[in-house]
Amino acid sequence: MTTLKIGIAGLGRLGFIHASHIASKISDAELTAVCDIHEDRLAKAKQHFDPEYTYTSFPRLLENKELDAVALVTPSALHCGQIEQSLEAGFHVFCEKPLGVNLEECMMAKKAVDDHPDLIFMLGFMRRYDESYRYVKRKIDDGEIGKPVLFRGYTVDPVSAIDSVLSYIPQSAGQFMDMAVHDIDLARWYLKSEPATIYAIGGCYAYPQFKEYDDGDNVSALMQFENESMAFILAGRTAPHGYQVETEIIGTRSMLRIASVPQKNLVEILDESGVRKECSNSFEERFDGAFIHEMQEFVDCILENRKPEVRVDDGVESTRIAELATKCFKSNELIKIKR
Amino acid sequence: MTTLKIGIAGLGRLGFIHASHIASKISDAELTAVCDIHEDRLAKAKQHFDPEYTYTSFPRLLENKELDAVALVTPSALHCGQIEQSLEAGFHVFCEKPLGVNLEECMMAKKAVDDHPDLIFMLGFMRRYDESYRYVKRKIDDGEIGKPVLFRGYTVDPVSAIDSVLSYIPQSAGQFMDMAVHDIDLARWYLKSEPATIYAIGGCYAYPQFKEYDDGDNVSALMQFENESMAFILAGRTAPHGYQVETEIIGTRSMLRIASVPQKNLVEILDESGVRKECSNSFEERFDGAFIHEMQEFVDCILENRKPEVRVDDGVESTRIAELATKCFKSNELIKIKR
Amino acid sequence: MTTLKIGIAGLGRLGFIHASHIASKISDAELTAVCDIHEDRLAKAKQHFDPEYTYTSFPRLLENKELDAVALVTPSALHCGQIEQSLEAGFHVFCEKPLGVNLEECMMAKKAVDDHPDLIFMLGFMRRYDESYRYVKRKIDDGEIGKPVLFRGYTVDPVSAIDSVLSYIPQSAGQFMDMAVHDIDLARWYLKSEPATIYAIGGCYAYPQFKEYDDGDNVSALMQFENESMAFILAGRTAPHGYQVETEIIGTRSMLRIASVPQKNLVEILDESGVRKECSNSFEERFDGAFIHEMQEFVDCILENRKPEVRVDDGVESTRIAELATKCFKSNELIKIKR
Amino acid sequence: MTTLKIGIAGLGRLGFIHASHIASKISDAELTAVCDIHEDRLAKAKQHFDPEYTYTSFPRLLENKELDAVALVTPSALHCGQIEQSLEAGFHVFCEKPLGVNLEECMMAKKAVDDHPDLIFMLGFMRRYDESYRYVKRKIDDGEIGKPVLFRGYTVDPVSAIDSVLSYIPQSAGQFMDMAVHDIDLARWYLKSEPATIYAIGGCYAYPQFKEYDDGDNVSALMQFENESMAFILAGRTAPHGYQVETEIIGTRSMLRIASVPQKNLVEILDESGVRKECSNSFEERFDGAFIHEMQEFVDCILENRKPEVRVDDGVESTRIAELATKCFKSNELIKIKR
Repeated sequence: MTTLKIGIAGLGRLGFIHASHIASKISDAELTAVCDIHEDRLAKAKQHFDPEYTYTSFPRLLENKELDAVALVTPSALHCGQIEQSLEAGFHVFCEKPLGVNLEECMMAKKAVDDHPDLIFMLGFMRRYDESYRYVKRKIDDGEIGKPVLFRGYTVDPVSAIDSVLSYIPQSAGQFMDMAVHDIDLARWYLKSEPATIYAIGGCYAYPQFKEYDDGDNVSALMQFENESMAFILAGRTAPHGYQVETEIIGTRSMLRIASVPQKNLVEILDESGVRKECSNSFEERFDGAFIHEMQEFVDCILENRKPEVRVDDGVESTRIAELATKCFKSNELIKIKR
Repeated sequence: MTTLKIGIAGLGRLGFIHASHIASKISDAELTAVCDIHEDRLAKAKQHFDPEYTYTSFPRLLENKELDAVALVTPSALHCGQIEQSLEAGFHVFCEKPLGVNLEECMMAKKAVDDHPDLIFMLGFMRRYDESYRYVKRKIDDGEIGKPVLFRGYTVDPVSAIDSVLSYIPQSAGQFMDMAVHDIDLARWYLKSEPATIYAIGGCYAYPQFKEYDDGDNVSALMQFENESMAFILAGRTAPHGYQVETEIIGTRSMLRIASVPQKNLVEILDESGVRKECSNSFEERFDGAFIHEMQEFVDCILENRKPEVRVDDGVESTRIAELATKCFKSNELIKIKR
Repeated sequence: MTTLKIGIAGLGRLGFIHASHIASKISDAELTAVCDIHEDRLAKAKQHFDPEYTYTSFPRLLENKELDAVALVTPSALHCGQIEQSLEAGFHVFCEKPLGVNLEECMMAKKAVDDHPDLIFMLGFMRRYDESYRYVKRKIDDGEIGKPVLFRGYTVDPVSAIDSVLSYIPQSAGQFMDMAVHDIDLARWYLKSEPATIYAIGGCYAYPQFKEYDDGDNVSALMQFENESMAFILAGRTAPHGYQVETEIIGTRSMLRIASVPQKNLVEILDESGVRKECSNSFEERFDGAFIHEMQEFVDCILENRKPEVRVDDGVESTRIAELATKCFKSNELIKIKR
Repeated sequence: MTTLKIGIAGLGRLGFIHASHIASKISDAELTAVCDIHEDRLAKAKQHFDPEYTYTSFPRLLENKELDAVALVTPSALHCGQIEQSLEAGFHVFCEKPLGVNLEECMMAKKAVDDHPDLIFMLGFMRRYDESYRYVKRKIDDGEIGKPVLFRGYTVDPVSAIDSVLSYIPQSAGQFMDMAVHDIDLARWYLKSEPATIYAIGGCYAYPQFKEYDDGDNVSALMQFENESMAFILAGRTAPHGYQVETEIIGTRSMLRIASVPQKNLVEILDESGVRKECSNSFEERFDGAFIHEMQEFVDCILENRKPEVRVDDGVESTRIAELATKCFKSNELIKIKR
């Protein structure tokens, strides 16, 4: 059996999680190299995972020919360039979402991927690897919902995390790109079609700080897809109860809901507040299993030489739609998409 | 159409509710007379319902020959004697649960009922008239649960009501008689059998005051019925979240649960405590509809000259079992019931 | 105490329910007259409620000067004219929703109401009288949700009722007017603002029959209100599981959901299909209590000479919005509302 | 870093799961040897995990001095003897529950464990390593439930698995030993006390085949613990809906429930059967994560030279109680436990 040697670039909150999974939860892979411009993160990774190589320079990572693949968990604005460089250097590439921060650079990344058909490229839309999301996908594909009528997707961060969100505003590409891109990808995956019209609204209901950047603390969009199905998405930053990622697909034969209660675990508490379930408070808590399945799939695809389900085109299209939703939100005009 | 003239005796918390129902929610009946030894309660009833007659003496109420029926909502220890007197005076009788506070007086009440086959007697086990309990009964009778395996019944008062409960201890016949008698009746109704063995335990977990009267603040009993099915019941006074009346019937083909969450209404709240439902806080809130259906059934039985489902024997048997459970709790010995 | 004499016009499905409530569930009111062009309905009402007067002609009903008030449960297209005539004849008026089928006639009805300030007029948006909806309204008014961010309202009829819906298409004013008008009213009530923009879409996902009338079997709309809050509403005819009326209000401090599971009762079933709750199948089943509270409020408002919460303006505005949503759905163009 | 070499004995359904975890999900451990008397199981394990050594003889496994620890997933009747032999051979031991099939042999196993204080012994009560069970334990230890009043534990296998259960009856030690021993352990863990009285009942409600072995297809027991708290447990084989492991702990300050709906995943389905969640169908599905955490804890305890929470005494006591419950069930007499 072969063991895949992976180098990871970016050791922030999510990068560290990916690193720890590669180091001990993924079969047939090992964490051979880590790269980050912050020395303290490198030191922490060194201590926890004991990788063979550490780098503060991404180009130096790419010079390591022992590696088979790289995982990019760097800031979004760096993704597209690093994808090109990594493929050029001959590595299989896993890249965190979003693919890029605008459609133009995404098209360049897509060209790079298309130019290297022998290399595996996978984009980190991890929800597609969550057990419940996959279960629903199978039911849709088996025809159990009938014809799809409406997709509804909520992604709302816990308000308890607002401080770090506010400090990130200047670098943010906006709620549609940062948050809703997941729901856009899910809508396309479940509805098997592309949006034809978009109307997007929102506002600053609790945090006027977003206004300066022409963004809102809660935004929503209604889209009609080419196959006539509808999608409503909400992205926000002010959930009082926890990390609310809820998805609903209404069909003519059944409705399916995923995590309509964002339960932390299987415990129900009966106390003076009533009967309650505590909630997940972060993406790590909710999607830990999905991140593992996703990375395992990346490794398996390389070893079995097959393409992952999430392709570069999914990154291109979801970025395109997020970009249009952002434009719509800013202009308050309906957008009809031409293809 | 005839309108039934009803006199009510006892205008405490529940008596007042019954009076208000008869006065305005029950078809073909009117609240003609009210009786209570407390003048203030009479005055309040007079003001709200404007009945034709008011009495401070129960015997005087029985002398009113305009009346068709009496409703007894007096202290439990008075029930059996008043049933006899009311029937003797020629009235149909509705009596609140429990039938009596010991088996001996219940047998006398039973004799009185049996001696007046032309008069309607009904006992107030109101849960049997709750929409959800009736729905489950129909499913059981239709064979949907298969063979019954286990009945589980919880009746736990909200701890917020503990002060009035503590002040009532000296008059109380104990938790099994005061609280669990409802679950005993339900178990007999759903399982269609009678207990063969009883083991009962409990304790004072929060309120040592009960110990003085050889009672507990939470007690439970496990029974095996003659048809082999099992019943587990819990009665208590310390629910932190509200009025917890929860019932489960496990069968070989399905399990049914009634009010496993004692929800106050259809509202779900997502806030910093998680996702929660607020709870009912009293029997009035939970069983308001059942009290109305029950009294309507009493009236309809009289007008249509048919016997109610809840008969005097249900009162006798549930009292017998509650008495044995109490004895078992006090002695810590298994009781095998001989018939 | 006074007893209000009410005449009802229209004895269809809902008219019969209102009649039965007035006849036996509403304090201080009696069902004095009934009116319907169908003799068989009159006969049925006669048998059940024994009203003093029966009419096949609405003008004849209005000639009965014993009456205090009329309840209009006639076809929607007749509402506005009958409101005018009834007020003109000196009666208090209860009118089922919608106020009218277009804005123009609603404005005339409004004028009639405004011209008779001494007469009580009430519109039958019964959800406002449902216990759970009122509970949420109080929480909103008490500031418990913080600033409102998004209102979401679903109204989807059970597909089991599709045949009668299909036969009604030719008379229908469309899904937005027939179904969504309830959610439009609720959104205005909860958000305390009026819509500034509307985008509406939909389609025929299961029943192409709607297409002929330029309608859909499921339609939705996204609105931004003048106070910046958002509203998303869905109206449909193809719910596989029952009568789905679900409402959510997201605020900056808490989220509230009403009937996110349209449970039939408090019974939970564990069988080979999993753990499930059966669902309500009709508005009668879900809103029986609300219809009673609503009619009681109408009677109390007359007796206490005060105005009901639901006024003619609520009918005007909800009709205006439903009309715009319909126009938007048909034109596929964003509508910006000028006031 | 050290890597622990583990040999596993017993490659049945659960043994294979443990083997796969050790092979790829447990940090700092490797599956060095596998042992089973069935050649086909060995072949399958060889193919999947490629262990260095395979054995059909347990004594031969124990001769392999490369190993650090053994995991016993053999038939219950072999546990105690193999524990002794393994410790004698100098290995750390993980043993699946139950410790043994009677108290006598458990006492011998306990002696062996006590005689080897330097070797780690851990018993596989995996529920103690489930995330939700641990969460509840922390809440109890933090005093959040107040004083414990009642523990309720249900363990009911899906009826879909009845054929394999029936074929296993001749080797079974009865429902209390096979199934309820988990709940007995949990009750002791959560209540922090030992039972003082036991009353146990049950019957053959669907499968008379159990009667021949003096067992039932559903059995229950009510216990009072020395600290006065109560415990009610139910063990059965006929759950129509799935693998029902449900636990409740009622305290004077709050009630906690674990998995009161044995949900398969986070998907809710709204279809003609109502609103439902599908259920877990096996212990593997429900407790996969717990088995991993448990084995990781065994490995960590060895590497860090500390004792696991689940000790041999827990096996002894739970076996003692299961044995008494079985005796009580067979004799229909209350048992008062003397210590």
